Amino acid sequence: MCDICVMNKVKDKMLSRRQFFSASAGAAAAAATLGAVTAAPPALAAGHGGVIDMSHKLSPEFPTFFGTPGISMEQQFTFPEHGFSLFNLSINEHTATHIDAPLHFTADGASVDEIPVTDLVVPLVMIDIAARAAENADAQVTPDDLQAWIDTHGDIPNRACVAMHSGWAGKSGSAEAFVRRDADGVAHFPGFHVEAAQMLLETGAASIATDTLSLDHGPSADFATHYAWLPMGRFGIENLAGLENVPAAGATLVIGAPNHVGGTGGPARIFAMV
Amino acid sequence: MCDICVMNKVKDKMLSRRQFFSASAGAAAAAATLGAVTAAPPALAAGHGGVIDMSHKLSPEFPTFFGTPGISMEQQFTFPEHGFSLFNLSINEHTATHIDAPLHFTADGASVDEIPVTDLVVPLVMIDIAARAAENADAQVTPDDLQAWIDTHGDIPNRACVAMHSGWAGKSGSAEAFVRRDADGVAHFPGFHVEAAQMLLETGAASIATDTLSLDHGPSADFATHYAWLPMGRFGIENLAGLENVPAAGATLVIGAPNHVGGTGGPARIFAMV
Ligand SMILES: [Zn+2]
Ligand SMILES: [Zn+2]
Repeated sequence: MCDICVMNKVKDKMLSRRQFFSASAGAAAAAATLGAVTAAPPALAAGHGGVIDMSHKLSPEFPTFFGTPGISMEQQFTFPEHGFSLFNLSINEHTATHIDAPLHFTADGASVDEIPVTDLVVPLVMIDIAARAAENADAQVTPDDLQAWIDTHGDIPNRACVAMHSGWAGKSGSAEAFVRRDADGVAHFPGFHVEAAQMLLETGAASIATDTLSLDHGPSADFATHYAWLPMGRFGIENLAGLENVPAAGATLVIGAPNHVGGTGGPARIFAMV
Repeated sequence: MCDICVMNKVKDKMLSRRQFFSASAGAAAAAATLGAVTAAPPALAAGHGGVIDMSHKLSPEFPTFFGTPGISMEQQFTFPEHGFSLFNLSINEHTATHIDAPLHFTADGASVDEIPVTDLVVPLVMIDIAARAAENADAQVTPDDLQAWIDTHGDIPNRACVAMHSGWAGKSGSAEAFVRRDADGVAHFPGFHVEAAQMLLETGAASIATDTLSLDHGPSADFATHYAWLPMGRFGIENLAGLENVPAAGATLVIGAPNHVGGTGGPARIFAMV
């Protein structure tokens, strides 16, 4: 029955005021507050000034590690023909803003659905290496960077996500700028030095995040940071966005990790609350 | 280079204390606080008592509207062979805990990536019809239910998500219990009455949510609630979990909507903060 006729009938009904409405004092009062009956929701007056979107949009154009599109969409139902629209999605788990679960680099580590909720709503530690990365695309977060943060803000908070802000998020519109493969096929973008990951293993940090394609910097030939971090039961976030809008300390990161059973990771919607 | 040898070498390195560590007063202090060096992160002492997971796990077993599995996973890389593991996911957008974007029931409404962030971190209005639904699987949220909530708690908050708690989330382990198709193929589960959706259009509510497969109750032959709500630029959430753990008013819902460009909806990780 999901055909246009039904829909139009319902739409017509909807666009006239309903009986129950004039009979409902509470709803009438609410409508008075909001002004006239509106088709679209009224604009939010104050807004959630404190919520920052930390995810990139997911599209076939987003640069990927393998250079092939990370998502394709196949339309199963169309509005003109079926009265509703629906796609089937084909997604490489490690596309756009996404989680690296321990299982990604282990035989039997935690899958993405096994990451505890206590690790998904956590203090955000922002390590700003943007100035250095602007000079050197191969820049890395080092133990010195972490120590400088600790010296200013105190210990790395328990369960924290420690995120590298290299200024790379704004380059994601172009694979050439974002991945920077040279003539030898070697990529050039910032990441975590393995010793920084090792230093964080001595803290209660639950995750590390980068605003680039990988936890390791582009020239890495051995994924040393991935192998240092993920097998220890911690997780990663890659292609994080929005780090230019958060403070070095004090924000809370809400990590909307996907929870497909047995996944090695997957696209995540992430917000920072400041 | 992602082979087992590299990984084991890195693991060995990792399991001995690092030079930089004993040299780092800050990290040493952090480690002292945490006790011994631990492979896995230490248990969270206090926990985020205030964060409730509102999403079901996504698996081929989760009951779907069409009765076919909503997700399949194809392994592209395996840890033994490649040194890391990765799946390609095939997902029906409307599987498990997921968003219905306006585009799902319109020719040109907002796609899931176009839902503003201000509509994704919002007050949660919990409408409890579980007692009635236990008696009648076809129960619906009515304008009277909404009015009763308003009489107790005040106007529906601006941008709110208004969620039906019917007690259905606990039945999702069995399609027979969750969808309840009868001999004629008619489903039986609770949903929003179209007049309740229409009443909410007079408020600033941004979304409605159900803990069942659909915004409309099972026997609906015309998707009246979908057609009343989505074409007006509001969105829906289906198969929400965890409503038994939230108060009727006062919680904040954080909706980790997927943001694949042009999507009609998709699996979402959702938390309530209380
Ligand atoms: Zn990775
Ligand atoms: Zn729906």
